[in-house]
Amino acid sequence: MIRKDIKALDAYHVPDSSGMIKLDAMENPFPLPDELKSTWLELLSNVKLNRYPDADMCDLRTKIAAKDGLNAEQVLLGNGSDEIIQMLLMASDAGACVSPSPTFVMYDLVSRWLKRPVTTVPLEKDFSLDANKFLQLCAREKASIAFLACPNNPTGNMWSEPTIRQIANNFRGLLVIDEAYLPFADRTHTNLIAPNVLILRTYSKLGWAGLRLGYLLGDAKTISELNKVRLPYNINSLTQASAGFLLDHFKLFEKQAKEVCFERNRVTAALMSIDAIEVFPSQANFLLIRTKNADNVFEQLKQKGILIKNMNKKSGLLKSCLRITIGTKEENSTLLAALKEIVE
Amino acid sequence: MIRKDIKALDAYHVPDSSGMIKLDAMENPFPLPDELKSTWLELLSNVKLNRYPDADMCDLRTKIAAKDGLNAEQVLLGNGSDEIIQMLLMASDAGACVSPSPTFVMYDLVSRWLKRPVTTVPLEKDFSLDANKFLQLCAREKASIAFLACPNNPTGNMWSEPTIRQIANNFRGLLVIDEAYLPFADRTHTNLIAPNVLILRTYSKLGWAGLRLGYLLGDAKTISELNKVRLPYNINSLTQASAGFLLDHFKLFEKQAKEVCFERNRVTAALMSIDAIEVFPSQANFLLIRTKNADNVFEQLKQKGILIKNMNKKSGLLKSCLRITIGTKEENSTLLAALKEIVE
Repeated sequence: MIRKDIKALDAYHVPDSSGMIKLDAMENPFPLPDELKSTWLELLSNVKLNRYPDADMCDLRTKIAAKDGLNAEQVLLGNGSDEIIQMLLMASDAGACVSPSPTFVMYDLVSRWLKRPVTTVPLEKDFSLDANKFLQLCAREKASIAFLACPNNPTGNMWSEPTIRQIANNFRGLLVIDEAYLPFADRTHTNLIAPNVLILRTYSKLGWAGLRLGYLLGDAKTISELNKVRLPYNINSLTQASAGFLLDHFKLFEKQAKEVCFERNRVTAALMSIDAIEVFPSQANFLLIRTKNADNVFEQLKQKGILIKNMNKKSGLLKSCLRITIGTKEENSTLLAALKEIVE
Repeated sequence: MIRKDIKALDAYHVPDSSGMIKLDAMENPFPLPDELKSTWLELLSNVKLNRYPDADMCDLRTKIAAKDGLNAEQVLLGNGSDEIIQMLLMASDAGACVSPSPTFVMYDLVSRWLKRPVTTVPLEKDFSLDANKFLQLCAREKASIAFLACPNNPTGNMWSEPTIRQIANNFRGLLVIDEAYLPFADRTHTNLIAPNVLILRTYSKLGWAGLRLGYLLGDAKTISELNKVRLPYNINSLTQASAGFLLDHFKLFEKQAKEVCFERNRVTAALMSIDAIEVFPSQANFLLIRTKNADNVFEQLKQKGILIKNMNKKSGLLKSCLRITIGTKEENSTLLAALKEIVE
């Protein structure tokens, strides 16, 4: 009754983090300020729970589009960017899905759910991407869709502008540039939007992970076709109301992102001074580090009440790697002290 | 770049209902009482928006399961039952998807998105279902999944218990019994749960349409396999917190459902006294009626500020049919007066 290939999968596992310093999931460490809470709750008190959500969400899409000088017709909303990845893979032509490796796991996972062949281009040793190799693979595999996470997760780096542009100009399928970490990066790719080039974003890293709101920016015609595979009421009323409100206070979240960037640079510098740790440059709200006995370091941090993400693989680019989300100043200092104690 | 068959589809259209008496979408007409609102909002003020939602939702699933004497392992949650239909169609073995016709449109629509062949068994003239015909079609089409909406939408009737049992006992694929309208019906089918028989439900008709929370009850092993195609954080934090709270006040919503049933019976009786209208027996929170010039009746009601759902087809069982959601006593009386004025 259930597909054999689905049975062979493991369910996506989220580790228990209760009571821990949570530096595993690229969340914004700052809670919603109290001065915003009362206005927000007042707004929620007017939401009609007994009615279906606005299915079209024109007002919300207009607000989101305006931040990039676009129109509502150029915005598709999803229950997290995860759901948009699913829509893209459902609606696009048959053919392989191509992405670099390593990258965000959902491109691969959802492709498998939808029986889409998946092919990956290994990143270079310095985590850079070779555009020629990427385009050659796309051609050979007759790729109909490709995902480029810019900055990339879990490596944290941003591929060069010429690399992205070369791929955008030459790939003939749907190219999805995933800018989940845009708030912490120095470049967007909205200028590359074309009928086949789309920009995927989420508000999760900016402080609203609990809301689950992702969005896709693109050509109005392409967005309108993708909208046909959107479940009619996919964004619930509370998320719609909250997102509208938070967008009105966007500067606060941008300021928080800047604080995270400042902390990221401080933690990077501190880690560089530890001989036993190699730290990679990041334009995201996390750092990838490499260290001997990575499994052991991960476990010891856990015992000290700090949860990071163990990316260690037996071989390949992620061998001996750990991923650390940037937290508050205090959390980061606690992490640094703990790391030093463990590795030095 | 986009599949031709997707391009050929129309997007799901939700009509504008602003300022109208809304009797089109099977919503509960009663808003959340003020005495619950303040406690609910206090609860929401504690939600950590900056953190991802609970991915496992064990507490919420336990609470939901307990209402039917089941365990958390027997519950899968979705962003509305729509998302669960998508998960079921993704995870199930290749093969046709079978349902009666007419029925809830999402079984067909999502099957098309996922390139699943769709076959339907026409209902009899009195909207009853012939279990033998259904099973014969399932066998002939090598069906791997079937959906039975009990009560059925848009017809409103409940198929007989022996009919459902015969299908449940003999169909070898996944059988999904969709009990979206259970709060208004006199029978559940949880006793039929088996490794291949699942019960689909939603809280949308009970007063929480804005939250988008659907759930699937079944055998723990089957639920665990289906859980593998669930997007990790599919239920956002506000919905989780709200649903937990509303479940603690479940009696209120059950009482409201009883009021809706009382009104449904009153409206049914009133409609039976109008010669120009045929009204069908309903175990749901809506009524299907048949009347000459249905398009015209629909438009005239709209001009009077009442939005119902026009189901009229050129031929077939739904010829000249309209679907009316039961509203408050006042809304229903307004509808009845308007209908009389139009058809008499």
